[in-house]
Amino acid sequence: MDQRPIGVFDSGLGGLTAVRALCKLLPEEDIVYFGDTGRVPYGTRSRETIIKYARQDVAFLRTFDLKAIVIACGTVSTTAIEVLAEENSIPVLGVVEPAALAAAKHTKSGRIGLIGTQASIRSGAYERYIHTVNPAAQVKATACPLFVPLVENGRFRPGDIVIETVTAEYLTPLREAGVDTLVLGCTHYPLLETVIRNFMGPDVTLINAGAEGARAVAQALKDQGNLARREVPGHCRYFVSDRVEDFAQLASLFLGWDVTEDVTQVEIGIERS
Amino acid sequence: MDQRPIGVFDSGLGGLTAVRALCKLLPEEDIVYFGDTGRVPYGTRSRETIIKYARQDVAFLRTFDLKAIVIACGTVSTTAIEVLAEENSIPVLGVVEPAALAAAKHTKSGRIGLIGTQASIRSGAYERYIHTVNPAAQVKATACPLFVPLVENGRFRPGDIVIETVTAEYLTPLREAGVDTLVLGCTHYPLLETVIRNFMGPDVTLINAGAEGARAVAQALKDQGNLARREVPGHCRYFVSDRVEDFAQLASLFLGWDVTEDVTQVEIGIERS
Repeated sequence: MDQRPIGVFDSGLGGLTAVRALCKLLPEEDIVYFGDTGRVPYGTRSRETIIKYARQDVAFLRTFDLKAIVIACGTVSTTAIEVLAEENSIPVLGVVEPAALAAAKHTKSGRIGLIGTQASIRSGAYERYIHTVNPAAQVKATACPLFVPLVENGRFRPGDIVIETVTAEYLTPLREAGVDTLVLGCTHYPLLETVIRNFMGPDVTLINAGAEGARAVAQALKDQGNLARREVPGHCRYFVSDRVEDFAQLASLFLGWDVTEDVTQVEIGIERS
Repeated sequence: MDQRPIGVFDSGLGGLTAVRALCKLLPEEDIVYFGDTGRVPYGTRSRETIIKYARQDVAFLRTFDLKAIVIACGTVSTTAIEVLAEENSIPVLGVVEPAALAAAKHTKSGRIGLIGTQASIRSGAYERYIHTVNPAAQVKATACPLFVPLVENGRFRPGDIVIETVTAEYLTPLREAGVDTLVLGCTHYPLLETVIRNFMGPDVTLINAGAEGARAVAQALKDQGNLARREVPGHCRYFVSDRVEDFAQLASLFLGWDVTEDVTQVEIGIERS
């Protein structure tokens, strides 16, 4: 048993899809979430910048006494997990490996689609994990750089010609490739689930990276005997690097409940002289 | 005469529309450009974050011996110009005042439209400048948060249903208000000029904040006798806080010429311990 909180971070709001899954799976856990809303998006940035930001994010989270850290961000998981795991004495878990393994196991045709940010796709990390389990799998990957700004501007509803046009453009090559499984490799994308499902058709299974990551964390804590035990639900605290109001408003869309009371703004990554 | 370079900065690529205008007006000037591509966009961020970033941007530019600094960013010009002007011994010039004055002088109907980022619109700065010249002017302002990511993803061409749909949504209230002048209050927006002109119709005059800012700088340097004099064209150097390749590729769209050889990546705003 370990009563310490789980730390979770993302470039912005997307990681809340993992928090939502974690709260469902492990309602007794305390969670400390950090969303780097002052520097979102990460997915268009270089490897060096992403590693630099991720280190600062973890340094902030580690001002709390945590039992594990979840990288609830496809971009950081593909790009910086080795560095972060090596530098930290507590477990650092990402969303890429669990999502890739779920896809590799699920596919029947061996044709897997993958969507993510530019940095995630460039890294090749999902493919590497898929091929460890299923070396013959064919992975068709596409970067979707506009999905994060569109979701963060509330454009994820079926019937919106903007999101539907962009979705069709990004996903047509995957549909034509006949994939039977599609990895939503960025934690923002579950908000596009209906739009993506409508386009890809009912025969394509969508793999939600945030939910798969949460499942893997729950399993790891259980295996190690490190779950918390409480009579009441655990407490979630949220920290962001930009305006609390902007975060709180959108967070309810990702989570399905209101967090306004529990959000605090913090400084991150600035010079200390 | 002052041979020192002019410093120009923006959150990313948008400020290049001001550089383009400056190079045309003052071909003998040296220019040092900084684009904070590692932290773009600024326009969705809070006032405090924008001021913090702008201070770091200026601190970097001032590692060069400059004769003036141009804030080629609508967001920083609306939000941080007073702070920056007060903290610096060389002139700090923005794009908001010149663009606002041009609009206030040009309108015949007294109905002026204004588009910009959320931060720019929230600041009310354009309206304040317009009303100093034309107190009776009615300003209809709309934030266009998706324009910057759409432009940075190359979606600014007429016929693209995505940019045309978003443009129609943002601009319909301005067209219905019958404005005769429209301020493009963000230096990214001149790339949308054709799309915006097609929607607003030929009777609406578009005011380009980057070009107006450049014109004001040229006038100020001339008035002070601080223009450079050279037999050859001045030299432009570009610094960015993220990948050089990504910047160089898009920069040619903004400038109309290739800059790959002249771009350098620098570190900005990280902790120095």
